[in-house]
Amino acid sequence: MTKTTALELLAKKREAIYALNMAAALIDWDAATTGVPEKSLEVRGNAAGWLGGESFSRFIASDTIEAIETLEGCLSELDEKEQAMVRELGTKYRKERAVPPEEMQAFESLTAQAQNIWEKARETNDFSLIEPYYEKVFDFSRRLCDWYGYEDHPYDALLDDYEKGATVKMADEFFSLLREKITPLVKMINSSEKKPREITGKFPIERQRDLTKWLCDFTRYDINRGKIGEVEHPFCTTITRNDVRITTKYHEDSLQSSLFSIIHEAGHAIYEQNIAEELDAYYLGDGASMGMHESQSRMLENMIGRSQAFAEILLPKLNGLFDGFADWDNEMLYRAINIARPSLIRIEADELTYCLHIIVRYELEKALISGEIKVKDLPGLWTEKYEELLGVRPPDYAKGVLQDVHWSAGLVGYFPSYAIGNVYAAQYMHAMKKVVDVDASIRGEDLTPVVGWLKENVHRYGELYLPDDLVRRATGEGFNPSYYVDYLEKKFTDLYK
Amino acid sequence: MTKTTALELLAKKREAIYALNMAAALIDWDAATTGVPEKSLEVRGNAAGWLGGESFSRFIASDTIEAIETLEGCLSELDEKEQAMVRELGTKYRKERAVPPEEMQAFESLTAQAQNIWEKARETNDFSLIEPYYEKVFDFSRRLCDWYGYEDHPYDALLDDYEKGATVKMADEFFSLLREKITPLVKMINSSEKKPREITGKFPIERQRDLTKWLCDFTRYDINRGKIGEVEHPFCTTITRNDVRITTKYHEDSLQSSLFSIIHEAGHAIYEQNIAEELDAYYLGDGASMGMHESQSRMLENMIGRSQAFAEILLPKLNGLFDGFADWDNEMLYRAINIARPSLIRIEADELTYCLHIIVRYELEKALISGEIKVKDLPGLWTEKYEELLGVRPPDYAKGVLQDVHWSAGLVGYFPSYAIGNVYAAQYMHAMKKVVDVDASIRGEDLTPVVGWLKENVHRYGELYLPDDLVRRATGEGFNPSYYVDYLEKKFTDLYK
Repeated sequence: MTKTTALELLAKKREAIYALNMAAALIDWDAATTGVPEKSLEVRGNAAGWLGGESFSRFIASDTIEAIETLEGCLSELDEKEQAMVRELGTKYRKERAVPPEEMQAFESLTAQAQNIWEKARETNDFSLIEPYYEKVFDFSRRLCDWYGYEDHPYDALLDDYEKGATVKMADEFFSLLREKITPLVKMINSSEKKPREITGKFPIERQRDLTKWLCDFTRYDINRGKIGEVEHPFCTTITRNDVRITTKYHEDSLQSSLFSIIHEAGHAIYEQNIAEELDAYYLGDGASMGMHESQSRMLENMIGRSQAFAEILLPKLNGLFDGFADWDNEMLYRAINIARPSLIRIEADELTYCLHIIVRYELEKALISGEIKVKDLPGLWTEKYEELLGVRPPDYAKGVLQDVHWSAGLVGYFPSYAIGNVYAAQYMHAMKKVVDVDASIRGEDLTPVVGWLKENVHRYGELYLPDDLVRRATGEGFNPSYYVDYLEKKFTDLYK
Repeated sequence: MTKTTALELLAKKREAIYALNMAAALIDWDAATTGVPEKSLEVRGNAAGWLGGESFSRFIASDTIEAIETLEGCLSELDEKEQAMVRELGTKYRKERAVPPEEMQAFESLTAQAQNIWEKARETNDFSLIEPYYEKVFDFSRRLCDWYGYEDHPYDALLDDYEKGATVKMADEFFSLLREKITPLVKMINSSEKKPREITGKFPIERQRDLTKWLCDFTRYDINRGKIGEVEHPFCTTITRNDVRITTKYHEDSLQSSLFSIIHEAGHAIYEQNIAEELDAYYLGDGASMGMHESQSRMLENMIGRSQAFAEILLPKLNGLFDGFADWDNEMLYRAINIARPSLIRIEADELTYCLHIIVRYELEKALISGEIKVKDLPGLWTEKYEELLGVRPPDYAKGVLQDVHWSAGLVGYFPSYAIGNVYAAQYMHAMKKVVDVDASIRGEDLTPVVGWLKENVHRYGELYLPDDLVRRATGEGFNPSYYVDYLEKKFTDLYK
């Protein structure tokens, strides 16, 4: 195969894969925003399965690897984008091929069943129901480590699968630093006499929709290149580079739920909207990694959306739209949107304690993969760790070890990337502040300078660079959790001491 | 190829084609109901084009015809469904293959351009802009007749393409009967002193949505196996047999527009919802023909929705939802929803005059195909025929010869199927009334007996039988326009004499 043939073959495949993936994204969007009639689920699932299978089998066909190997043989003749495409496709292809197909099939039907069992186990508070499934999931995951390969710790292979380049060494350092600095803060807050006022009341949904428009405008999420849907569990999805959609769920008695989910999803969306269009042709038109994506959403949600400057512009807006804010001031609002309190449920956790929930899961997964603990030990260890790190004790498994769908879905190694995003976000914020007056931009109700910096230094590159390389180019150094830990320590000491 | 291999091959292909078509239907639904960002149009169009092309190329591959020919060689060993599948696929395949691919490609790019030119020609009232495109469309259509083949009149080939089994002979008889009976009625109405009161006022859209729910319930459109969207131009689309969606457009100052579009689309939807699920596996899960589909929507819209019995149940409903009906009675409402008046625009025409609009187009198309007239004669002949049949004269081309998109889209032979549906509808209604008390069913606000008869005699068969066979099995005779003409004559004589 010649270089030209190889490039043409990959381009042709990409067209097919792109179309099939677009269809899959629209099928998911349709289901989430308008629902699927229950009787239609099976046939629709078969069709969606066919489309996904077709996309996969086009990728996994043997001419793909022939093309990749051809291009690997003449890397120096390729431009930067072509080289990155070869790197990404080569890695992905070899991982897919490393798993024996019959094992993968068995695993997929296992996890399809396990998710139903997991729901039953939660409902009946019976860990023993799900235990044999978790055993098999972790057993498969351990073998996955061997199939994928690793240098130091087998769990590296799983971490890397969700966050390219992530390792146990890096996560251990990060999490022990967090533990050391955050757990005393949490104890301090638990005994603090500062009790911020809570935002309560009724918030008419039509008014919340008006707030959403203002938030989209503020974050520079381009609604003319996307749209907003209402769903049960908010997400962001890319149909095309110029049709990036976000979603939210409005609750009449909770203002913050939709407010911060919109800012969060807008953070994902501006990333997708700003990826250079030309990268699509090289399979590089996605975010650099899951952690990198979370860095954008969490920076917007927490570092910007929960800042003092944002509280200042938010208050007059809330006074214009809702009753009950007449006797509030900026400082009260800032404190109200930053209430930190140790809790049992990860997805409801505040900015400060969120990563502690991740540490629990990380330590358990790592020990399960290395064989130090067994699945049957999980409930006991979960309770121990929550008591140790957060000072709370789950009353049942639904609020404890069975709260997350991940393990029954076969996702092992996924949790840390939620936390890694915070680290990147703090690094970017630190670097950006050297050249951009972020607070002035927030107070001016126009994030253009902030988003401009992110687009220039992060967004536009898509998957062209590996995460560590991308953050290094933008900030001058690789993954470094100290900025994030310092940020948390300063913010929450000021708030609660 | 053995019989078993052939059946398996077609089943496997169907799975792919079904999934690709489902994706295409969802892409269209998404565009119509939520819109597409303008900047996303091109990429999205490319992806949709790829999916459509993939579906087509799987169908047109040479192993399809090998399988069809294998099965044609052992028809007597096949069951009824398999035989029908072979009949339908064989016809479709040979038609597709009869057109030289380069001619088809040229035609497709011609019509893609022609639709933009048509819009310009309408705007500037300049027929000469579109004339060369129409020349080419009709030139291609004439050659299409030869490629497809025909027995008597070349136009038969085009009619049959949209309405299996339709011929010039049948259409001529139908339309001349209509002409003879309806044109005097139209003259009578024009000079009638009966001036029904019109429904005017403001109809809050939220209340119209409540009316929609009642209409869906009344027509037995199963909303749990579908959903309702709001769009610019209403349509019905099938995602799966258990997810059949209808759409409408609400106008605050027009009650009838959405009311009757909902009943019309519900007529299409109950057809799709009631097709036997097992037929999907044989490529037979669609309506028997376009005319057969229209027979269901027009029966519900006109013969049921514009009946005296329906006016009786509608009035209290309108009084409950809207202002301004307190001084109405059943008879007034019945007359208001049946106002007939010759007009210029087909899609706005009433039940009585609708088919006259079709006659104009039918006669012009037939004469163009046989070479009796030229494209340049169209504007003059259009005006002549509207004056003769409807007594009205278009002030410009937008309200005259350029009102329909069909010819610029390459659709020649399509119009008559709109009218043919009315004929089937009247035949079914006549047969059904022998065993079902239709008016009592309407007055009881529950169409179950009516829909039950339609399901039993029409819907469930999908494409298993050819249209003429289907109507014959249900009513004891083939296509017979006399029921429809009698129905119109009686209804509108009673209303206006």
